[in-house]
Amino acid sequence: METTKRDIEPAAGRLGVLIVGLGAVASTFIAGVELIRRGLAEPVGSLTQMGTIRLGKRTEGRVPHIRDFVPLAGLDQLVFGAWDPVADNAYEAALKCGVLDRLTHIEPIAGELKAIEPMPAVFDQNYVRRIEGANVKTATGKRAQAEALRDDIRAFKTAHSCDRLVVIWCASTETFIEPGPAHEDLSSLEAAIDADDASVPPSMLYAYASLMEGVPFINGAPNLTTDVPAMVELAHNTGVAIGGKDFKSGQTLLKTVLAPMLKTRMLGLQGWYSTNILGNRDGEVLEDPDSFRTKEKTKLGVLEHILQPDLYPELYGDFHHKVRINYYPPRGDNKEGWDNIDISGWLGYPMQIKVNFLCRDSILAAPLVLDLVLFTDLAQRAGLKGIQEWLSLYFKSPQHAPSVYPEHDLFIQQTKLKNTLRWLMGEEQITHLGMEYYED
Amino acid sequence: METTKRDIEPAAGRLGVLIVGLGAVASTFIAGVELIRRGLAEPVGSLTQMGTIRLGKRTEGRVPHIRDFVPLAGLDQLVFGAWDPVADNAYEAALKCGVLDRLTHIEPIAGELKAIEPMPAVFDQNYVRRIEGANVKTATGKRAQAEALRDDIRAFKTAHSCDRLVVIWCASTETFIEPGPAHEDLSSLEAAIDADDASVPPSMLYAYASLMEGVPFINGAPNLTTDVPAMVELAHNTGVAIGGKDFKSGQTLLKTVLAPMLKTRMLGLQGWYSTNILGNRDGEVLEDPDSFRTKEKTKLGVLEHILQPDLYPELYGDFHHKVRINYYPPRGDNKEGWDNIDISGWLGYPMQIKVNFLCRDSILAAPLVLDLVLFTDLAQRAGLKGIQEWLSLYFKSPQHAPSVYPEHDLFIQQTKLKNTLRWLMGEEQITHLGMEYYED
Amino acid sequence: METTKRDIEPAAGRLGVLIVGLGAVASTFIAGVELIRRGLAEPVGSLTQMGTIRLGKRTEGRVPHIRDFVPLAGLDQLVFGAWDPVADNAYEAALKCGVLDRLTHIEPIAGELKAIEPMPAVFDQNYVRRIEGANVKTATGKRAQAEALRDDIRAFKTAHSCDRLVVIWCASTETFIEPGPAHEDLSSLEAAIDADDASVPPSMLYAYASLMEGVPFINGAPNLTTDVPAMVELAHNTGVAIGGKDFKSGQTLLKTVLAPMLKTRMLGLQGWYSTNILGNRDGEVLEDPDSFRTKEKTKLGVLEHILQPDLYPELYGDFHHKVRINYYPPRGDNKEGWDNIDISGWLGYPMQIKVNFLCRDSILAAPLVLDLVLFTDLAQRAGLKGIQEWLSLYFKSPQHAPSVYPEHDLFIQQTKLKNTLRWLMGEEQITHLGMEYYED
Amino acid sequence: METTKRDIEPAAGRLGVLIVGLGAVASTFIAGVELIRRGLAEPVGSLTQMGTIRLGKRTEGRVPHIRDFVPLAGLDQLVFGAWDPVADNAYEAALKCGVLDRLTHIEPIAGELKAIEPMPAVFDQNYVRRIEGANVKTATGKRAQAEALRDDIRAFKTAHSCDRLVVIWCASTETFIEPGPAHEDLSSLEAAIDADDASVPPSMLYAYASLMEGVPFINGAPNLTTDVPAMVELAHNTGVAIGGKDFKSGQTLLKTVLAPMLKTRMLGLQGWYSTNILGNRDGEVLEDPDSFRTKEKTKLGVLEHILQPDLYPELYGDFHHKVRINYYPPRGDNKEGWDNIDISGWLGYPMQIKVNFLCRDSILAAPLVLDLVLFTDLAQRAGLKGIQEWLSLYFKSPQHAPSVYPEHDLFIQQTKLKNTLRWLMGEEQITHLGMEYYED
Repeated sequence: METTKRDIEPAAGRLGVLIVGLGAVASTFIAGVELIRRGLAEPVGSLTQMGTIRLGKRTEGRVPHIRDFVPLAGLDQLVFGAWDPVADNAYEAALKCGVLDRLTHIEPIAGELKAIEPMPAVFDQNYVRRIEGANVKTATGKRAQAEALRDDIRAFKTAHSCDRLVVIWCASTETFIEPGPAHEDLSSLEAAIDADDASVPPSMLYAYASLMEGVPFINGAPNLTTDVPAMVELAHNTGVAIGGKDFKSGQTLLKTVLAPMLKTRMLGLQGWYSTNILGNRDGEVLEDPDSFRTKEKTKLGVLEHILQPDLYPELYGDFHHKVRINYYPPRGDNKEGWDNIDISGWLGYPMQIKVNFLCRDSILAAPLVLDLVLFTDLAQRAGLKGIQEWLSLYFKSPQHAPSVYPEHDLFIQQTKLKNTLRWLMGEEQITHLGMEYYED
Repeated sequence: METTKRDIEPAAGRLGVLIVGLGAVASTFIAGVELIRRGLAEPVGSLTQMGTIRLGKRTEGRVPHIRDFVPLAGLDQLVFGAWDPVADNAYEAALKCGVLDRLTHIEPIAGELKAIEPMPAVFDQNYVRRIEGANVKTATGKRAQAEALRDDIRAFKTAHSCDRLVVIWCASTETFIEPGPAHEDLSSLEAAIDADDASVPPSMLYAYASLMEGVPFINGAPNLTTDVPAMVELAHNTGVAIGGKDFKSGQTLLKTVLAPMLKTRMLGLQGWYSTNILGNRDGEVLEDPDSFRTKEKTKLGVLEHILQPDLYPELYGDFHHKVRINYYPPRGDNKEGWDNIDISGWLGYPMQIKVNFLCRDSILAAPLVLDLVLFTDLAQRAGLKGIQEWLSLYFKSPQHAPSVYPEHDLFIQQTKLKNTLRWLMGEEQITHLGMEYYED
Repeated sequence: METTKRDIEPAAGRLGVLIVGLGAVASTFIAGVELIRRGLAEPVGSLTQMGTIRLGKRTEGRVPHIRDFVPLAGLDQLVFGAWDPVADNAYEAALKCGVLDRLTHIEPIAGELKAIEPMPAVFDQNYVRRIEGANVKTATGKRAQAEALRDDIRAFKTAHSCDRLVVIWCASTETFIEPGPAHEDLSSLEAAIDADDASVPPSMLYAYASLMEGVPFINGAPNLTTDVPAMVELAHNTGVAIGGKDFKSGQTLLKTVLAPMLKTRMLGLQGWYSTNILGNRDGEVLEDPDSFRTKEKTKLGVLEHILQPDLYPELYGDFHHKVRINYYPPRGDNKEGWDNIDISGWLGYPMQIKVNFLCRDSILAAPLVLDLVLFTDLAQRAGLKGIQEWLSLYFKSPQHAPSVYPEHDLFIQQTKLKNTLRWLMGEEQITHLGMEYYED
Repeated sequence: METTKRDIEPAAGRLGVLIVGLGAVASTFIAGVELIRRGLAEPVGSLTQMGTIRLGKRTEGRVPHIRDFVPLAGLDQLVFGAWDPVADNAYEAALKCGVLDRLTHIEPIAGELKAIEPMPAVFDQNYVRRIEGANVKTATGKRAQAEALRDDIRAFKTAHSCDRLVVIWCASTETFIEPGPAHEDLSSLEAAIDADDASVPPSMLYAYASLMEGVPFINGAPNLTTDVPAMVELAHNTGVAIGGKDFKSGQTLLKTVLAPMLKTRMLGLQGWYSTNILGNRDGEVLEDPDSFRTKEKTKLGVLEHILQPDLYPELYGDFHHKVRINYYPPRGDNKEGWDNIDISGWLGYPMQIKVNFLCRDSILAAPLVLDLVLFTDLAQRAGLKGIQEWLSLYFKSPQHAPSVYPEHDLFIQQTKLKNTLRWLMGEEQITHLGMEYYED
């Protein structure tokens, strides 16, 4: 329970945010930051902008905003860049995806959005089958592509006079890949890149380029990317923070709250059926069974980890968990989830919980992008390299040390995040024991 | 962060459980314990019987059952008694309420259930209008009634050779009472009892009798009962643990999980509409607007406290919260809740969550009764007198020290409970910081 | 089964539509008609504009649009006027109620909407308590108010060179009134008006004025209004068509479809619980228990009439039917209904249907206004005076001859409407027998 | 509009009911009939047993029970037999499927159920992959199998002294088959049987055997079976009634009520997403994509036919319709459907309807079996041979004359059925015109 403040470099200068994929999430994120800067909208959904943190005892009344407690980059310091196989600028992308209201949330910042033109992407239809794009790099061969990405990163930094950068993946889900020999250590990965090995998808080239340039990399999709030993090794070598994987935005967010509720109450689980309808590009990509398999993996793992069937075989040893995603164009970006949960209580009597979540994919994801960028930059400045487990809160499948199991419970994740911030700043850990209020 | 184990008397001998109200909850609880003792059913829903507790680091793998970690009374040590204005024994009560399957869960223990005949109750239709009963005490005047209850408690202890007792209120919701002068200190309360003052409802007489006899008292309804300074004073004088109020079983349980989720994610709230349909005696009593007012109070307070509108005026400063309860006989004890939650995300875009909970009132409440009895008895043996805030997990409106605000968030409540158990046993507090797994 | 075409006067000239209440429904209706005229929107929801009618056998392929089959007034022939106690013009009313998108559906026709200023209303807070308004008639005394309304009608007709008029009530629900002696015949009604009797609410004065002027009157609220013998007598005397009451738009529409489904399948009903949340002026008015009582009446009657408990005592003799309406501002005009239906099947086994209808009050009501205006004008031109039972399709509580029970089943209502149109035009009735396709 | 009663042979003697498939539906049906005969349960869900029919005008009050109006066989006249590849008798089948309460609904008639042992089935795993069974005919070759079935039918009739028989398919969904040359006329079918052609699945052999024996055949599954010209030809040759296909019990029942509601109101449809979870043998069979394809066909066709996109291209020309079925064991026979319906109203504004149906598969299907058996026997006695379109009410995909489109609207189907009964008995057709009540 150390109470010494950690050394953290100040958040001075400009922070470049390089986004892989300039689609619904990225354009909603960028437009939002521009609007918030101008006071035209509120950063709802963002812990870094709106959240507070309790310090000390409940009776002390010390509850500063997080942004006033830890040294984060301010919104005015952010500069945006992106890669995308489709050549639409951020303005065109925002219009096409139909997330934001054109008049109140796109036109007032049209100039800024139009100025963000995507750099040609490293793209390969073998990994994302339902998308086509012409704005792709001419470099062939994975090594050449990686180098081209490194050039992009350096060029962007110079062009925009950035002091620091963060790269974040907001692009589509790639087809399923098992971790293999090529991912086991850095030298194998280097060799695989040189050999144009199929086990190195584009997302790994982006991550590799980013880490090689000393830039933190965050993975918002379920792709393996940095979640392999080779990438962790590289991150440690270059002293870079990494985070992932798969933004936890809608149905899984609910799952990581409801499953802990069941466990807190020792209610049994017989089955959990989750279905989703969504009509955006993400939905279209996930129609491909191979992409869906990647997604299914991160979506299914959550319950196993939270419910610990090994500890509770009578309660959670044998439940049926199904996750379905359906491409359903009438909805556009307005994703909808329906969960049916079959539970049991005292003496085994059955009960049911049904949850219908009418959400908006990019509206939920955009503030996560902002928080992850700012917190990862904080971590980097605080010298925390490699896996940032304290950012588990934001991911469906949080990357973690091989020695421990992942924490999926949203509230454990939040405690972890907030106690990490307290630890960074030399404040006491909060345990909620609170016996002192009742001592005679 | 003390790490010395606290002195706790052993859980030896028989523990008498005296229940106010021998209706659906009480009969389901008693029947369940009898069945579990015989290996005929599982204590699903009970943390004391099925829960585990992590000790030390994640890598240590120390995760004992709670019942093996702290010294709790065993199910075989429990002896049951009850008061009720209706003369039905536990067997008849179980049949009437229709909660348990007659063949598998009532008949096998018919003998034990029939043996539990309710003692005449202190009952007054001014406080519970929709119930009538003939099995009431002849004593008139509140002082005489309190003394009659004290006699009952002593007689039960002797008759069943109990070493310790716990009294728990599982009866109906009384009409609404504001805390007043009569409740301000013990001498005022004593005077009010002597004066047959209307501000002392039956539930307070039960609590008073219990505390005077040195017996812990737990309040499962939203009635004020022990949640007044006079009762806290009495509990400290006689060195007795008290706990309350209002079992958190169904819709509010969900609320204290979903509201923290919103806050964790800084999602805004515009409105929360909760409706319930239930057809048991509880539903019938709550048709009386004065009883409903008592209930509404504990149901509504939850969101205010969790969401902290003072800290987050933009997000939670102006939401509409409605709670409706409808008596709907087709459902019997199978309560159903429907919640509609209007939330907002990034830039204020609206989204909706709808939750339909098909639950069973008594099936959810029964294991709470068991846990509260066993944990309160533990607290008593550990010398923790007065308010047991660490048991907040079980209550819709947890009683707390006047110096602090209540914790409604289910996960803070769970952390509080588990860290209290660790503290009692001299184990380290868990903070979920976990930086050690990532140190070089 | 007569097959002679009835004489119908042509729909020549201008048809004035005088609306009582220039709020959400009226402004949405008027704006819609203006937009449709200009080709800027589709008349979705309107049977007169989009519906077809099958004539003859299935094999004949004769399925004209209704508007091409019977002589209806065209949208270009409509002229609008209104009364309202609030002085907002149709443009202001449309903006305030927040139903239509300002840019695509209000601004393009701002001029037309602004030109519609409400005439001062006959208004009395004794009948609608939650509304206040300054735009009210100075005339005091019910007789003088009735005469003032008649003057308005005549003046409007002249000013706008109308050939025919229809008056339609789109205003709030008045407090509950039982039919009484004042309503029994025309002379009693006349006397009650003269005597300023409390049993003559404003809505009856509007209807009276309308009928006295030979203008058809349609009642979109659950108020008694024309549903009393005195008004039927007056309608016959002056040869005028009347229709009502209470637009069947959302939850009740669903009920009159699902209840017939249960009956068609002989599935039993144990309970039907309906709750509504809405945040518009209608919701606010219905917070007043006396206004709700009027509404509850029309909402509850539906199931009794469809399910015929006298014919099916085992199936429908004892079901619990609850209807709740909650004023819930976050929703504005976007009403939402949740129905829970407890049914039973073979051997009595229980099942449940739950329906969640996320609707828009005025969007559902506006096309009903259009259809009712056009069909009632048709009836008037076809010489059908008094109650128009064939328009039952549009009402929660269709007015009917005293000799018969009302038809609430949406499909019987539709058959009645379409067979009436066939009868008017001398086409054969459709019976769906269809044996001819299978004769050898 | 003929009003002469048709000649109908009396329903004298015993009616044998031969069921293909002795699983959940068949055992629930048989047990139910036995219980109802003894007065131990009600025939809820059965039109023949509980339904009434209005005759003449509304004012006449003539509303007899259907069973008192047309000459149906009584329940006491029924005798049951079955084929199944699994050798369980009806008692064992009823226990295994878990539909009925053992104590109240199985044990009291255990003797009768045990006496019903399935005859060896004609079964072929090429058509139903997820089921295995040992109780199969030794005959190899389709011709020999058809003859064996004919022998069974004759033997059953003799053994049980039946006057008439009906065969009804209550077995699993076979893999998808397109109508082909083998089905075009009777001689091709005969040749295909002789040639062991793969286009003749077991269900066609049952139908063939049945029709050859002059016994009506009803098809409760989506299999083609009698829905091909060859079978219609055979039915006409042997003067036999046929009916099908696919019992309309749960989600599709709702669809054929809600879609007509939309059309009646001219509300647009953008999308309809239907998902099902069920855990019985039916669900398991439908996990096989080839079986699901057969089912999907009948489930999808419904909306197209009801909504007539050709007539209403603006409203129904481009909606997305998805149907999903998920095998989800926690539910057993308690199927659950969730439908999300995206609709549009006035000026195109979007709205949503969501329906959650917690139903019981066999409880919904069993009374359909009873009604179909009794009505088909009536048709046979009334000399109605070939397709019985008037029984469309009971089927997801009603078989119909090639000259006409099918009627899927539940209320048109009901009108058709009831007007057919009136026609059979020489009563007037009901048109719901009802102008006579309003004539002066």
